[in-house]
Amino acid sequence: MKTITVLPGDGIGPEVTTSAVRVLRALFEKSGRDVQFIEKKIGGAAIDTFGTPLPQETIDQCHNSDAILLGAVGGPKWNAQSMNVRPEQGLLGIRKTMGLFANLRPVEAFDTLIDSSPIKRSFVEHVNFVIVRELTGGLYFGRPSERRGAHHEQVVDTLSYSKNEIERVVEKAFQLAMKRNKKLTSIDKANVLESSRMWRELVNQIAERYPEVTVSHQLVDSAAMQLITNPAQFDVLVTENMFGDILSDEASVITGSLGMMPSASLRSDKVGLYEPAHGSAPDIAGQGIANPLATILSAALLLRYSLDMDQEAAQIEKAVRNVLSQGYHTCDLQMEQPNNHIVNTAEITDLVINAV
Amino acid sequence: MKTITVLPGDGIGPEVTTSAVRVLRALFEKSGRDVQFIEKKIGGAAIDTFGTPLPQETIDQCHNSDAILLGAVGGPKWNAQSMNVRPEQGLLGIRKTMGLFANLRPVEAFDTLIDSSPIKRSFVEHVNFVIVRELTGGLYFGRPSERRGAHHEQVVDTLSYSKNEIERVVEKAFQLAMKRNKKLTSIDKANVLESSRMWRELVNQIAERYPEVTVSHQLVDSAAMQLITNPAQFDVLVTENMFGDILSDEASVITGSLGMMPSASLRSDKVGLYEPAHGSAPDIAGQGIANPLATILSAALLLRYSLDMDQEAAQIEKAVRNVLSQGYHTCDLQMEQPNNHIVNTAEITDLVINAV
Ligand SMILES: CC(C)[C@H](C(=O)O)[C@@H](O)C(=O)O
Ligand SMILES: CC(C)[C@H](C(=O)O)[C@@H](O)C(=O)O
Repeated sequence: MKTITVLPGDGIGPEVTTSAVRVLRALFEKSGRDVQFIEKKIGGAAIDTFGTPLPQETIDQCHNSDAILLGAVGGPKWNAQSMNVRPEQGLLGIRKTMGLFANLRPVEAFDTLIDSSPIKRSFVEHVNFVIVRELTGGLYFGRPSERRGAHHEQVVDTLSYSKNEIERVVEKAFQLAMKRNKKLTSIDKANVLESSRMWRELVNQIAERYPEVTVSHQLVDSAAMQLITNPAQFDVLVTENMFGDILSDEASVITGSLGMMPSASLRSDKVGLYEPAHGSAPDIAGQGIANPLATILSAALLLRYSLDMDQEAAQIEKAVRNVLSQGYHTCDLQMEQPNNHIVNTAEITDLVINAV
Repeated sequence: MKTITVLPGDGIGPEVTTSAVRVLRALFEKSGRDVQFIEKKIGGAAIDTFGTPLPQETIDQCHNSDAILLGAVGGPKWNAQSMNVRPEQGLLGIRKTMGLFANLRPVEAFDTLIDSSPIKRSFVEHVNFVIVRELTGGLYFGRPSERRGAHHEQVVDTLSYSKNEIERVVEKAFQLAMKRNKKLTSIDKANVLESSRMWRELVNQIAERYPEVTVSHQLVDSAAMQLITNPAQFDVLVTENMFGDILSDEASVITGSLGMMPSASLRSDKVGLYEPAHGSAPDIAGQGIANPLATILSAALLLRYSLDMDQEAAQIEKAVRNVLSQGYHTCDLQMEQPNNHIVNTAEITDLVINAV
């Protein structure tokens, strides 16, 4: 029996994970797979109960799982609290503890959303790429990260990488490129940062083992521009943690909305953590109107990468496209087509389940 | 007599600065102002002559100037060289030596360029904001920045700020907001970085002295998205060095092209350095076809901020708009209008001078 740990987290997290679990259950029933779901707390919800954003029992349960499905963490409720206990630490902590070093975010335009997107149809129509973001190193994990001086007049964060940390995620990106269009773009700031120069050298070294893959390098500032002016050039993008954080949120404008962007956080075996790219949206939490599609699409990635259920993964992705093309969507999305129906979280989930 | 130091640099740098100097000379002649131009080397050009990207004579000359006009630095020619001598160090070095801590990049759509831009007209039409980027601190200047370990298996860059470094640039942004629409958006990653938490605290402290200014905070990942989905919300953006680097290049898609984006690097007195946001474009260097408008618009900022010639600055900006609206442009820009003429660097410069 396989085990999926569900970490609903905060805000709309519980609503969107509930939706995705319903879709998964329906598929497991149909295919006769025996999978158990176990729910644990993370983020603000865990702070409220255990005083820590990542309780030991959550860690233990994740280590005994085949996959983890996460909602979102954080919210204004916990912002004012002591800076030593923040919901985001739960998310950063579980990624680190589980060694999930490669965060994949597929970027593809949804036809029915293009007309209301800020970008013109001709620029995004045939876009289909994946961002591979290093997830457990760099500035978001570097030590020291502290204030200094008698009056705390200095502050320091540290961007640190080992060769191995860079190599394993770049390797993963090359493997992915081999299964796709054999084009890899590495993003760095090698004209300024030493870490980027090492990154670029290692990419070039690993490239020698993948002669079929066309490799190019872009500076992060230029890449932030080209993601909008010429997104069709990309197949697989690979970059360090913070650049990946910024660029993948930016790239969500191509999918039509951050509410449509799934993610998979992987390591070398099949265990992975799957979560929507969006946050906890505390302003609409608890109203039953959140868009669960990014989480449902993350569940599809879970089937593909952790459970070898490629076919079922594709079924979910197709079902989501079908439901959208019929004009159904939650209130966060805008659609410029005549037969256009706003539905709530439960309704759109039902529609996806029926379409599977 | 006022002195402007011209640092043409590399690639198309000499061509675009020549254009901007011609425009400035024409204006000084008209207004009877006595201004001398002195040219010095920087970047790759300085490496070729002096073996260093920032020779002492260049530094000395800049310290004796009222303003500096810079083209661009860098190119493949110097990439292969020892990592201790890179053209970019000239640029980073002159900003640091001169203490030019506040980089302003105005973002405004050019009407005739909107239709060929990737973003839909309705999203950018009324956009008008300024990005204030901290320019002499943070990750691009932090020490240590080095490889470590017996086999150089570790690499470290350091993001470091003092309170004073943050306060002075935030103060500048507030002053700018007071002269504009009194709206300030500060960008950070306060949910993860200690430096961002200090940044946010200091913004909130300074905000108390500017009760008229509406202040909001955005996380950098979210801001990278909102720059495209809702750019009209912004008036003044303020952020640290690297976030500003990435976001301002991204924002150039709003202006229609990086080839249209000027910048001013300022400190507390009137001395400033003015340069286009684009790079040295080595692929088209020396052909006389480069787009000089970002540099000409930077010259307008020079008049405004360093020489108190507001009226003349506005004349240049208006002249550039006029020339574009008549359908004239260099080959890097696309225009979707019938009376559309591709001209070269010298021709578009003549057109601007005639329109002033
Ligand atoms: C919440 C935050 C720590 C997180 C990150 O930056 O990694 C989020 O923005 C993401 O991209 O998953
Ligand atoms: C060339 C490089 C060092 C520079 C920077 O990142 O500051 C450039 O990208 C810029 O934005 O002016």
